[in-house]
Amino acid sequence: MDRVSLIDRVSQGMKNLLVLMLVLLTGCAQQQLRGTGDLGVVIERAAGRIVVVDSSAHATLGTVEGLGDLSHASVVFSRDGRYAYVFGRDGGITKVDLLTQNIARRVVQAGNSIGGAISQDGRLVVAQNYEPGGIKVFDAETLELLADIPSTFGNNGQRSKVVGLADLPGNRFAYALFEAGEIWVADLSDPKHPQLTKYCDIGRQPYDGLVTPDGRYYLAGLFGEDGIALVDLWKPEQGARKILAHYGRGEEKLPVFKMPHLRGWAVAGGRAYLPAVGRHEVLVVDTSTWQEVGRISVKGQPVFVMARPDARQVWVNFAFPDNGWVQVIDTLDNRLIDTLAPGKAVLHLEFTPKGEQVWISARDDNRVMIYDTLTRKPVGELPAQSPSGIFFTSRAGRIGF
Amino acid sequence: MDRVSLIDRVSQGMKNLLVLMLVLLTGCAQQQLRGTGDLGVVIERAAGRIVVVDSSAHATLGTVEGLGDLSHASVVFSRDGRYAYVFGRDGGITKVDLLTQNIARRVVQAGNSIGGAISQDGRLVVAQNYEPGGIKVFDAETLELLADIPSTFGNNGQRSKVVGLADLPGNRFAYALFEAGEIWVADLSDPKHPQLTKYCDIGRQPYDGLVTPDGRYYLAGLFGEDGIALVDLWKPEQGARKILAHYGRGEEKLPVFKMPHLRGWAVAGGRAYLPAVGRHEVLVVDTSTWQEVGRISVKGQPVFVMARPDARQVWVNFAFPDNGWVQVIDTLDNRLIDTLAPGKAVLHLEFTPKGEQVWISARDDNRVMIYDTLTRKPVGELPAQSPSGIFFTSRAGRIGF
Repeated sequence: MDRVSLIDRVSQGMKNLLVLMLVLLTGCAQQQLRGTGDLGVVIERAAGRIVVVDSSAHATLGTVEGLGDLSHASVVFSRDGRYAYVFGRDGGITKVDLLTQNIARRVVQAGNSIGGAISQDGRLVVAQNYEPGGIKVFDAETLELLADIPSTFGNNGQRSKVVGLADLPGNRFAYALFEAGEIWVADLSDPKHPQLTKYCDIGRQPYDGLVTPDGRYYLAGLFGEDGIALVDLWKPEQGARKILAHYGRGEEKLPVFKMPHLRGWAVAGGRAYLPAVGRHEVLVVDTSTWQEVGRISVKGQPVFVMARPDARQVWVNFAFPDNGWVQVIDTLDNRLIDTLAPGKAVLHLEFTPKGEQVWISARDDNRVMIYDTLTRKPVGELPAQSPSGIFFTSRAGRIGF
Repeated sequence: MDRVSLIDRVSQGMKNLLVLMLVLLTGCAQQQLRGTGDLGVVIERAAGRIVVVDSSAHATLGTVEGLGDLSHASVVFSRDGRYAYVFGRDGGITKVDLLTQNIARRVVQAGNSIGGAISQDGRLVVAQNYEPGGIKVFDAETLELLADIPSTFGNNGQRSKVVGLADLPGNRFAYALFEAGEIWVADLSDPKHPQLTKYCDIGRQPYDGLVTPDGRYYLAGLFGEDGIALVDLWKPEQGARKILAHYGRGEEKLPVFKMPHLRGWAVAGGRAYLPAVGRHEVLVVDTSTWQEVGRISVKGQPVFVMARPDARQVWVNFAFPDNGWVQVIDTLDNRLIDTLAPGKAVLHLEFTPKGEQVWISARDDNRVMIYDTLTRKPVGELPAQSPSGIFFTSRAGRIGF
């Protein structure tokens, strides 16, 4: 064997090794260490895709595709802030790794679903389903099914649509049954053996619900009648009661372009700010008596009424045809202090963790606008294709998100 | 040149390359991607060291040494949750990378310091100093000094110790001047040109302060007289006023083993829970009127009185000789529901972000005990050398922490 061919062989071996190692090095160079406290997700509904964003740098880290039907999609976050659980309209739950922008796990667990929640300890992910009606409980790590709780009511085995799912302290979850007119609380501290508490005859057709930030009051809005069903979860023996008897579409049955989102309700300084149904008003309610104490006239039918984390401001968006506007209320004197035009078809707002900025999705302008909440001036903008919901990882540390 | 020596040379080159690349690969293998939402820091005061902990796994990720004098040390976190800023008693500020457990930056900025805070937008880190008296403002990224605001008062150029520094919405900071008896609010929205608002004659010798979770009320406890100084930051034109005229050591000037920490005050459901000074009591105050509405007898002189994030429970630790006990108050009826003995010399408590667990440092048992707040049973334990303060990254998203 002559020296040249020998050197060739040696150096060929070296080349192969080099290539292999370069591949490995490139792979790990992409694994940039970074904190997850300032990450978030923007839903690109039409594309079935999410955008992973950095709320410090006002930057897009990447996009993740293949999440199915994301109309009315909602998102919760793992306890460590690394993973987003995206609940699709089609019953899909996708666990997305925000750091690598890859799909870590995905299951399709129902035919027709409307969001979900994560337990206080971060170990359980729960989906609320229309079809088949009920909730399903999954291991947050593996998305393995741990419990299936059908929303069966009455005597004929009928199952109800589930709405308004909210996580509570003690690894419990509260939700409402649309056809049944019931509120259920599921204690999942032993997920394989759920304990159910049922509140019956709470009112006709609850269509959405929320829990107050302290986890004490569960409220369900009613579609079939006026008023709101309330359960004081600190005094369960009192059962459910009806508050705000005139809250709703009222006698005249006003045309309602979009039922407002209850989850958006602002609870600020002992007062709750509610979107009136069908009226151009935000209602102010005292949370100690649950009596209405005021009304604020606004530009349209409110959809989301959201409090800045320090509760000094409440930001409101509106249903069509007023969905190009956002208005700001000062909670000190319940006065409108600003009216903004962030873009066409404003669908959602999300405050940064300490509230210095708010991100607003303008679907028909294909952009997310970022405002300074003190000056109410735009400070940034990100392109997004028909953006809808915006969700930041700070939700992982908060009850009822 | 013979073939052997040639092959030798070639393969020697290959060896060197292999070694180099292996070093690179090993380096990046250590860079484990992970979320930062469940990380925290435990102060090992005597050792001048911190322990980086994972509150999901109940595990220690590593320790970081060389942080100087950590007696009375406090910690704030970067907006992304990756970095801890550790404020030492000796004026040192150390920026620690929680993901690599390395010191990213360190400055010694004063001779005698007592903690710090981070701005709403996460861009400014502020230290409050005894000597020389005042606050200093640093770039959170580089720790470059941006502003130096001496606490000069009166006519002779004297500087006061600064206490009770708290971050406010709008990149403002509130703090109290011990010798001056003043409360100052510094607006640092333009850090190079701070705007100061001074409240004078607020009472004798404010020794600590806090801001309510909504950023509205700043309160300073007084050492030189009874009562508490309060500023409604939403109504600055009203100036400072005195509340709870009998709060303090009182006429009899009871022996006080340790002045309670105000920062620990619990504000829960429209009520504040205050450690009585020198008495075995927790005071209950209505935050709308700031009148006392009740007192709860406890086992010793309270030091930290802290609300679980959902505000249903308040946990209390005590000064010597009762510092082996922790008591739990149910805020629904302000009743003691539990008395625990977590270990010798309990110095601090920290709740997990959603409050399912609480971490308690037992200095003289060299351990951190972890309790389930629902069952109040221990669920974990970590060794630590004379642990004092415990701080979780969820503070990054909260006002006044």
